[in-house]
Amino acid sequence: MQRRSFIDKTAMAGVLGALAAPAAMAQAGTPAVKWRMSTSWPKSLDTMYGSAEHLCKRVAELTDGKFTIQCFAGGEIVPPPQNMEAVSNGTIEVNHVLASAFVGKNPALAFDTGLPFGLNARQHNAWMQYGGGMEATREMYKKMGITNFVCGNVGVQMGGWYRKQIKSVADLAGLKMRIGGIGGMVMSKLGAVPQQIPAADIYPSLEKGTIDAAEWIGPYDDAKLGLNKVAPFYYSPGWWEGSASITAQVNSKAWDALPAQYKAAFECACNEQTMKMIADYDNRNPEAIKKLVGSGAKLSYFPKPVMEAAFKASNELMNELAASNEDFKAMLPGWLKYRRDQASWFRVAEAELDNFTFANVTK
Amino acid sequence: MQRRSFIDKTAMAGVLGALAAPAAMAQAGTPAVKWRMSTSWPKSLDTMYGSAEHLCKRVAELTDGKFTIQCFAGGEIVPPPQNMEAVSNGTIEVNHVLASAFVGKNPALAFDTGLPFGLNARQHNAWMQYGGGMEATREMYKKMGITNFVCGNVGVQMGGWYRKQIKSVADLAGLKMRIGGIGGMVMSKLGAVPQQIPAADIYPSLEKGTIDAAEWIGPYDDAKLGLNKVAPFYYSPGWWEGSASITAQVNSKAWDALPAQYKAAFECACNEQTMKMIADYDNRNPEAIKKLVGSGAKLSYFPKPVMEAAFKASNELMNELAASNEDFKAMLPGWLKYRRDQASWFRVAEAELDNFTFANVTK
Repeated sequence: MQRRSFIDKTAMAGVLGALAAPAAMAQAGTPAVKWRMSTSWPKSLDTMYGSAEHLCKRVAELTDGKFTIQCFAGGEIVPPPQNMEAVSNGTIEVNHVLASAFVGKNPALAFDTGLPFGLNARQHNAWMQYGGGMEATREMYKKMGITNFVCGNVGVQMGGWYRKQIKSVADLAGLKMRIGGIGGMVMSKLGAVPQQIPAADIYPSLEKGTIDAAEWIGPYDDAKLGLNKVAPFYYSPGWWEGSASITAQVNSKAWDALPAQYKAAFECACNEQTMKMIADYDNRNPEAIKKLVGSGAKLSYFPKPVMEAAFKASNELMNELAASNEDFKAMLPGWLKYRRDQASWFRVAEAELDNFTFANVTK
Repeated sequence: MQRRSFIDKTAMAGVLGALAAPAAMAQAGTPAVKWRMSTSWPKSLDTMYGSAEHLCKRVAELTDGKFTIQCFAGGEIVPPPQNMEAVSNGTIEVNHVLASAFVGKNPALAFDTGLPFGLNARQHNAWMQYGGGMEATREMYKKMGITNFVCGNVGVQMGGWYRKQIKSVADLAGLKMRIGGIGGMVMSKLGAVPQQIPAADIYPSLEKGTIDAAEWIGPYDDAKLGLNKVAPFYYSPGWWEGSASITAQVNSKAWDALPAQYKAAFECACNEQTMKMIADYDNRNPEAIKKLVGSGAKLSYFPKPVMEAAFKASNELMNELAASNEDFKAMLPGWLKYRRDQASWFRVAEAELDNFTFANVTK
């Protein structure tokens, strides 16, 4: 493996053997590798962009500065909508994205991020790490020349900001809502009119009434946009993703060329951030939701009939996508079984204790 | 990109023909470090012991085999009850334990593992990584010459196996139950009589009626003991820990002596296992709970009055421990506030979507 290739290289290097200790010889053969990572985040999304930076810093620390990944904010070297293609064609070695941003290219990419009423963050990690999810998603990515790694999770997001109350499914009819991807497709089935507009345009569009609602992320990130001033009805939960998992998509040729030690460094650093990013969000969101409510956000749960209609529409959509897309068809049955089994088990212990504790410690 | 890194390597080999490059010289100075890790697990607890092995393997991969940690099952080099002292006095460099096993020495160690009706696994990670928990627990460990790292989590455990049904708090009176630590102290307040017996003796003790009940871990690990045959009433949830976090306790002198690159490798590998161990459990438990129920386990939730009495007794106990222990006193107020804030936020999005989804996908 690694050791053997070092020996070969050392033999070619010749005189080095006389000058340096064995460890030095081995290291002398370790190439300097520089990658560029394009993210989909402005630097102001400091939890996600920050996690990407931590990832790059950790890889450098782990390799004594010999494997370096330069981290770029969204648009600095690649416009976010082209992040996946740029990895696929080798313009950049790696990106840091929500794979669901590219469902226009292949809706099955949503399995890599999260689906409506889907696996929560822990369940998604279980599926990806041990339940066959990694193998299934890599099979899909292989065709694009990409090797995928989970490297973060946002958790359950909020259901967005609305200018008017949503009292029933009927209130969604004709609602112009900034929401993309699979969630937008479900909203469309419910009568809403999904809109794709950049983050910077959300506030003025809501203020003018060009749109009626917008989903963004969760309390910590949402607070930066100040949407409570122009669309005070803040709904929960963001049912369109059971959790939102972040992916590092790596150009497969660049990946295959890495020494084993660098592969271990990258994978370990991604797995670390899978734990750390959501810990960072979980740590920040409680304070943020308090501040938002204190600044006039009117917090509500979606009415049960809206949730039920969304659940029904989501199931219909997933079946339709499976009928028209081979990757979706290949992954859906296993994923549905996994979701059911996970839900059955989580109801036994995790949810039961969570519900009791959450209710009692907030009394 | 890839092409460029090959060019770098060739150029580097040329330079090395004449003189070792700075990176190689630096590496020549990197010492070989060998540590011994004593765990608290028999090898049959393959999820926990397996995670310890993965941790050691990863550290070796990340350091090109120069920092090696030999992993031992419980009792192979140190009896589990002495694992903490062995690190403290430098007999071994590191262990892999539930810190709560040592609450007899200092009850505040329970903050490092989990407390009754405490933080769930995600919340505990948030507290430890970003919410001040690491700093607070390290302050406590400093006095023992130990530096602590989170390196796994079991999640919410089950409430144990009982020979008879628990219909009310009165049914706990005089109940001889195998349960240790803080959970045992609360059970004692509820009238039960906690027993400390080794894992191997649980089955025969329940069979003979020497004890009436026993808690072990969760479905995957419990299934190996076959307790459903001798104590069929299987209760949930294991309220004595909001989650059970695994700790690597490292001898502080050994830690301080590590080169920065090895420190990064150890910390990153611990953080990776914090995500991976619970993913492994979450992946295995659904199948295990089905099998247990299929083999005669009678699954029930603890009755609400029992949960309420346990919650009240837990709060009393925590206040008592704070009154008699400085470390407990120092940590309790911040932890209680963190628990309340986390619970408030988790009720907004996570629990709301979990509850809806879990109920609907298992219909």
